[in-house]
Amino acid sequence: MNAPLPRIEPREMPPAFLDALQQTFGERCSTALAVRQQHGCDESSFVAPPPAAVVFARDTADVASAVQLASLHGVPVIPFGAGSSIEGQLLAVQGGISIDLRGMNRLLSLDADDLTVTVQPGITRQQLNEAIRHSGLFFPIDPGADASIGGMCATRASGTNAVRYGTMRENVLALEVVTAAGEVIRTGTRARKSSAGYDLTRLMVGSEGTLGVITEVTLKLYPLPEAVSAAICSFPSIEAAVRTTIQVIQLGVPIARVELLDGRSVGMVNRHSGLTLREEPMLLMEFHGSPAGVREQAETVQAVAGDFGGQAFEWATTPEARTRLWTARHHAYFAALQSRPGCRAISTDTCVPISRLADCLLDSIAEADASGLPYFLVGHVGDGNFHFGYLIDPDSPSERERAEALNHQLVARALSMQGTCTGEHGIGLHKMDFLVDETGAGAVAMMRAIKQALDPKNILNPGKIFSNPSTPGR
Amino acid sequence: MNAPLPRIEPREMPPAFLDALQQTFGERCSTALAVRQQHGCDESSFVAPPPAAVVFARDTADVASAVQLASLHGVPVIPFGAGSSIEGQLLAVQGGISIDLRGMNRLLSLDADDLTVTVQPGITRQQLNEAIRHSGLFFPIDPGADASIGGMCATRASGTNAVRYGTMRENVLALEVVTAAGEVIRTGTRARKSSAGYDLTRLMVGSEGTLGVITEVTLKLYPLPEAVSAAICSFPSIEAAVRTTIQVIQLGVPIARVELLDGRSVGMVNRHSGLTLREEPMLLMEFHGSPAGVREQAETVQAVAGDFGGQAFEWATTPEARTRLWTARHHAYFAALQSRPGCRAISTDTCVPISRLADCLLDSIAEADASGLPYFLVGHVGDGNFHFGYLIDPDSPSERERAEALNHQLVARALSMQGTCTGEHGIGLHKMDFLVDETGAGAVAMMRAIKQALDPKNILNPGKIFSNPSTPGR
Repeated sequence: MNAPLPRIEPREMPPAFLDALQQTFGERCSTALAVRQQHGCDESSFVAPPPAAVVFARDTADVASAVQLASLHGVPVIPFGAGSSIEGQLLAVQGGISIDLRGMNRLLSLDADDLTVTVQPGITRQQLNEAIRHSGLFFPIDPGADASIGGMCATRASGTNAVRYGTMRENVLALEVVTAAGEVIRTGTRARKSSAGYDLTRLMVGSEGTLGVITEVTLKLYPLPEAVSAAICSFPSIEAAVRTTIQVIQLGVPIARVELLDGRSVGMVNRHSGLTLREEPMLLMEFHGSPAGVREQAETVQAVAGDFGGQAFEWATTPEARTRLWTARHHAYFAALQSRPGCRAISTDTCVPISRLADCLLDSIAEADASGLPYFLVGHVGDGNFHFGYLIDPDSPSERERAEALNHQLVARALSMQGTCTGEHGIGLHKMDFLVDETGAGAVAMMRAIKQALDPKNILNPGKIFSNPSTPGR
Repeated sequence: MNAPLPRIEPREMPPAFLDALQQTFGERCSTALAVRQQHGCDESSFVAPPPAAVVFARDTADVASAVQLASLHGVPVIPFGAGSSIEGQLLAVQGGISIDLRGMNRLLSLDADDLTVTVQPGITRQQLNEAIRHSGLFFPIDPGADASIGGMCATRASGTNAVRYGTMRENVLALEVVTAAGEVIRTGTRARKSSAGYDLTRLMVGSEGTLGVITEVTLKLYPLPEAVSAAICSFPSIEAAVRTTIQVIQLGVPIARVELLDGRSVGMVNRHSGLTLREEPMLLMEFHGSPAGVREQAETVQAVAGDFGGQAFEWATTPEARTRLWTARHHAYFAALQSRPGCRAISTDTCVPISRLADCLLDSIAEADASGLPYFLVGHVGDGNFHFGYLIDPDSPSERERAEALNHQLVARALSMQGTCTGEHGIGLHKMDFLVDETGAGAVAMMRAIKQALDPKNILNPGKIFSNPSTPGR
């Protein structure tokens, strides 16, 4: 059984549209089923009919042409980056076409003196960091998956480095965007700050493809830290690990990463990545700075951890050892899937003010334990953001129901603590109702009014974030 | 002679509206000329007829009531914070009423463990920092003037600390806003990050009162640094000071403040504040961190400064000495006005990528020198943002023309260098044409579409950022 799908509302696909598309793009327009299917799914557990065609864009002009045709015929367009979104953002729930941006993966301009880079949206974060390595700079935002930069903009991604470097919200300086009418606009300059009119950059960041197709991105970069060290520390309880994190943040320690894994997730990671980490609640940390600064940070954190019963730090000092640890962390999701062959993961993404993190986590763990479902738990705890992954048998409706019930309870708890239903994954198809609960009907009405104003034909990734603007209610 | 005013377009003021306003607010609604005049000007050099009435709001419900009445009668409303904006944002160019928010200056909730605070919009940044001092936290954004937090949100303010702590864009977590229909919405939660729908917070930040009236603000706070030290360093040339700054930023030194004053501005400050600083190009810097971290930063910066011929640092180690220095810096604007009694200042606000800062400054200085106008020059150079203030005789049309011509040349230069016409002051009445030059007609059309969607009657601070949505062209 597949996931219940929110509102499949395919629109009519005018044959003239597909003809025009094929005339314009030739063999860069595919209607092969395998290609369409590959572009009609993401890392979510949802399933929908695939898009009617896939256009492989080479440049901004291609994107503009495709959107102009789609606008003329009222056909939905869905931008495709790396396919790693996890809330159904890529699914063609109202039909339409996918625009594959993976061919637009060039670095357009590296301005090392200004700590900025301008790229096409299809470049992935690893490709980007590879391409700028010689400059002594790096782009820190790291959601785990090797996502495309355009997709990371679209979902307002963050990940393990956000506690120090912020999220995509803080690190995108400017965008080039193809509007719903197929026009090309720029949302900003390379200046570090600006008060010039409405912040269209931040309006596009996190809009999940519903307000425009991102065709160019200017990002902030950072000097590679002079010194980097990573450490793991095991704790007698999740609470001890979380309380350590809270105190570290409150002390203002500029820790670069602080990730929580619960004991069972450590076990999954061990088995998946061939490691022998102690299968107890664990913090995985990284410190960036000058050698003296890193030493100072680490000493402070060790002292705090000690107060909460943390074990002595185990250091990963070589780049290879660090990479092995972080790769293992990034593979936690796959390690978890592997632990129950054939399962799917229902991922949560709540984020709460850090003072409420321990309460939120502990209550949610108790609920998850009581449910009997297997799960993993990882968290960007420095931000108050964490993910349960409930590992369900996709053929068991009751397991899915239990998982969704757990997610609902968790979101309700996070909202009651002044948190959010999604720290970094986005609303997609899955959290529309939560969005209303979180922000209120008035704020969602304002979002809908913006959507209606900028995309009056509702062709840009329709059915995501909220259902059709014309549909009453949610 | 007063400044030429962009488009005075007063609307009809229905007598029934003023009656209803006075019935609702009683003595908290004033039509006294002196009160209206006080609310009808800011720190800009523009002059317009005052608003028809001023409502003194006590709470969000007051603001909502006033906006509901204004909406019913199609009357403009202009939020008033501290009156310190400098691009004409407060001027009633289309008539209407001012809503004075200074009475809404309470701290609503300090969540020290989460490093957040929620305040009413009329609280000023100094009042805020005074109110939270006991917590060991502070709010770093410092535009110089003791602006209101609501006003700082509205103009996307920044100032001297932005190089390390960011601007209002990065430091507002959530807002409560009264919409054009008089409804109350919330734009976010207290979570540090979120991917829940469109970023209404950042859409409101920098919208200059044209999309809603801000009635509550949740801000990020920071632990007071364990160690703070400030230093001044004189340089043989502006270029040497700027090149020092550029290198410090490129090295990734987390300097908290780095401000440039040219030699004549130092002289003005000396005479205004009774100081005896060397009247040469000067950097005024501040370092925040642990004692060892501050020492390390200062050593790095001293070494770089030495390479460019900088004098030995003069340290301001006591809080009193630091306050004296920064107060002097913050009074540079008034010091400059005092240097030419009766003058007005035409302020510029360009911001460029830091690699272009030296070129941009030096060419602009040469132009200013050639013009014969007196001026001052201060800069948040760590961000690439600087301000010329051309000191003109308000009765001399030719001086105003020369100043505006200099500003035009400067903006054109900044835009050609991928910079912005305004780093922190906003568009207001003064930079509408520059906004189109900077972002392009397509982006401005998108902004207008948003304005039209959220404020269809155009009652929220109309005539700012762009002229009426219904007016063709700019």
